[in-house]
Amino acid sequence: MRKIIYHVASTLDGYIAHKDGTTHGFLEEGEHVSDYLESLKEYDTVIMGRHTYEYGYNYGLLPGQPAYPHMMHYIFSRSLHFAQPHEQVKVIADNQIEFLKELKETTGSPIYLCGGGQFAGFLLGHKLIDELKIKLNPVLFGVGIKLFEGSGETYRLRELHSIAYKGGVFLLNYEIDYL
Amino acid sequence: MRKIIYHVASTLDGYIAHKDGTTHGFLEEGEHVSDYLESLKEYDTVIMGRHTYEYGYNYGLLPGQPAYPHMMHYIFSRSLHFAQPHEQVKVIADNQIEFLKELKETTGSPIYLCGGGQFAGFLLGHKLIDELKIKLNPVLFGVGIKLFEGSGETYRLRELHSIAYKGGVFLLNYEIDYL
Repeated sequence: MRKIIYHVASTLDGYIAHKDGTTHGFLEEGEHVSDYLESLKEYDTVIMGRHTYEYGYNYGLLPGQPAYPHMMHYIFSRSLHFAQPHEQVKVIADNQIEFLKELKETTGSPIYLCGGGQFAGFLLGHKLIDELKIKLNPVLFGVGIKLFEGSGETYRLRELHSIAYKGGVFLLNYEIDYL
Repeated sequence: MRKIIYHVASTLDGYIAHKDGTTHGFLEEGEHVSDYLESLKEYDTVIMGRHTYEYGYNYGLLPGQPAYPHMMHYIFSRSLHFAQPHEQVKVIADNQIEFLKELKETTGSPIYLCGGGQFAGFLLGHKLIDELKIKLNPVLFGVGIKLFEGSGETYRLRELHSIAYKGGVFLLNYEIDYL
């Protein structure tokens, strides 16, 4: 079964972005960045919420085009529509949980969950996230988009493997212990 | 000058307690616990907010008595009053910031800020916290009392020294980079 891995940068106080979606304050240079870009090659499929996909428009992403050229994209949204989406981009509007359960049963790489907090919280509540790879940055935001929006449950984690980078970024890797 | 060190356990998603102040889900056994108890010996002074002090009542603390027998206690509250407080316990009701600035100029150990989130957020906003020692626990709470309540500013951190414990707890030590 394919794992869903939530692979995301976070502040020490649990925010993946400022309220407006920007990420000013995360360290954008260093070995943690090259390692991250390298690790993206291991994913052939990415899933994300609408806000996360649309945030790419600020960086030149065109609507309906893939954000990661080598991956199949599934965007989860009930409102998003593209006139002529790229063949690697599909919007999943209905039966999202059933779709994901079936996707996990197909063959392929682990599935890259790149965000955002709302979509991740939704998946967590359905026990669909298998692993966390948190790039913990040495910064506090105080407010912003939480790692898991809308979650109010306690989930224990099991640490798998972590890396301490120079500059104060930690890559913290856990599996979620769904009791 | 004496440093103020915020030394506290946190979830991966930035909560120091559940909404009701309880901490079910933090790992209560292991080397990180004995190390923590050992490190408490290094502090001769503790500062905290009212909620944190009163939370000790659940563990047998008597009103006006010290929570840590070898420390001088300063409880920051405008409403708390004790009829006959212990000589090691003082309530600071007025001119709290001035009091802390003067306390930092006295001689003694680093000052242990044990919580809570509201008091820590208040001190952070006044640039009075020098160091963080975060016992990052492998657990998610989703909601609860934040590491820094009421803060909406971005603060960069500089990692000083960190320890990875068996069982998945990290002791993350930073100084705050007030620009």
